[in-house]
Amino acid sequence: MLDNFQFILVRPQMGENIGASARAMLNCGFRNLRLVDPRDGWPNDRADVMAAGAFEEMSPVDVFETLEAAVADCHFVLATTARPHNLVKHIYTPEGALPPIHQALKDGQRIAMLFGSERVGLYSEELAFAQGLITIPLNPAFSSLNLAQAVMIVAYQIAASLHTGEKSLLNKGKTDIATQEEFEQFFKRFEAAVDAAGFFASPDMKPTTVKNLRSLLARVTPTTQELQTLHGIVTALSKGRA
Amino acid sequence: MLDNFQFILVRPQMGENIGASARAMLNCGFRNLRLVDPRDGWPNDRADVMAAGAFEEMSPVDVFETLEAAVADCHFVLATTARPHNLVKHIYTPEGALPPIHQALKDGQRIAMLFGSERVGLYSEELAFAQGLITIPLNPAFSSLNLAQAVMIVAYQIAASLHTGEKSLLNKGKTDIATQEEFEQFFKRFEAAVDAAGFFASPDMKPTTVKNLRSLLARVTPTTQELQTLHGIVTALSKGRA
Repeated sequence: MLDNFQFILVRPQMGENIGASARAMLNCGFRNLRLVDPRDGWPNDRADVMAAGAFEEMSPVDVFETLEAAVADCHFVLATTARPHNLVKHIYTPEGALPPIHQALKDGQRIAMLFGSERVGLYSEELAFAQGLITIPLNPAFSSLNLAQAVMIVAYQIAASLHTGEKSLLNKGKTDIATQEEFEQFFKRFEAAVDAAGFFASPDMKPTTVKNLRSLLARVTPTTQELQTLHGIVTALSKGRA
Repeated sequence: MLDNFQFILVRPQMGENIGASARAMLNCGFRNLRLVDPRDGWPNDRADVMAAGAFEEMSPVDVFETLEAAVADCHFVLATTARPHNLVKHIYTPEGALPPIHQALKDGQRIAMLFGSERVGLYSEELAFAQGLITIPLNPAFSSLNLAQAVMIVAYQIAASLHTGEKSLLNKGKTDIATQEEFEQFFKRFEAAVDAAGFFASPDMKPTTVKNLRSLLARVTPTTQELQTLHGIVTALSKGRA
């Protein structure tokens, strides 16, 4: 599915940014990079260094003289830009672009994601090729975004939206979360141990203090293994006291 | 609200990555950066170059000898890691971490976001300080992520989740989308012009062809100004024909 995407850097200037963009793309699983009229030609040694090996795992980079040629075989074109340039066009945030992107994917379309040069971005003549624009909402007081960072934000948003794994997961290794019964066994021992140590100075306050301690420890949601460790601590601290 | 966050780079190695991380943070509106035991000391000339002026707009960077000291005044600590290291801990994707982050913000907490060194990430002893872990889902075949790119993904997800602007907006400049009546006026003229040009060879097929042409042009959703341009084209193409 990610192979439906062509990331297209238009008139990129620095090889470093091409390489870092490739690395960011492949981090997110995208393998198709096209270049339109790269300033320093292609291939580029500095791109290779910054790619950290990404090019070896990607489709061969295709270089085009014109944007028209670079998007020729694509169906749906989205262009990133800081400004809409008075074009009548939908402007999406990276998140807002996901519904039309998902629709285009569902329709089996090849999708072109355009990124302009470091210095000037995309010209309005270039934006005119696109069905929609993506503007990344940034701190208005500091909105100069590195090219590879723009690629990363867009690539990550798309990849994350297609990610099927859990968004939140308790990692608990080989043990399970303790049952309430196991927790209560521990808590009773703990209560007895601190009682024996003379912690409950005032018998009147004891019920409230016990309730608050139970409430505090209940927030931990310990595993069975962690409870065993806590049992061991109670044993060690109680030694020689009884 | 974004000032509730402390981004903390633990044992960062390359000044370039510290600077690029600062730039990424400030792009997203975060101004508080802390460093724990930076390999090449602080300040760092290479960080300044890559920050593209970010440090001048941020709070002064605080440097700590230990992670313990760096998180001391924070309430909620999230640590980024590629591996959970057998710790019993919630693991979130950057998106999955948003609900607990929003809750902590609502509670007025200071939130620490930890990032490890380029070479080894965070040690499990360091992850143990965190209430939760963030693992960025990446291409398993190419998951080596640049430090500043990790900062960008996390910073952008948080900032975007707090972004109150529109996620999708039709940019139409000073004109409005044409009403259906305006569209129909144009379409009738267009139909008459192509009819006069002899386009409808078969009278039988004309209703179907007209329907399909209307359907095609209806997809454009033109503005009033764009319709005027199209009227002008019909006028120009019809000239000398009638």
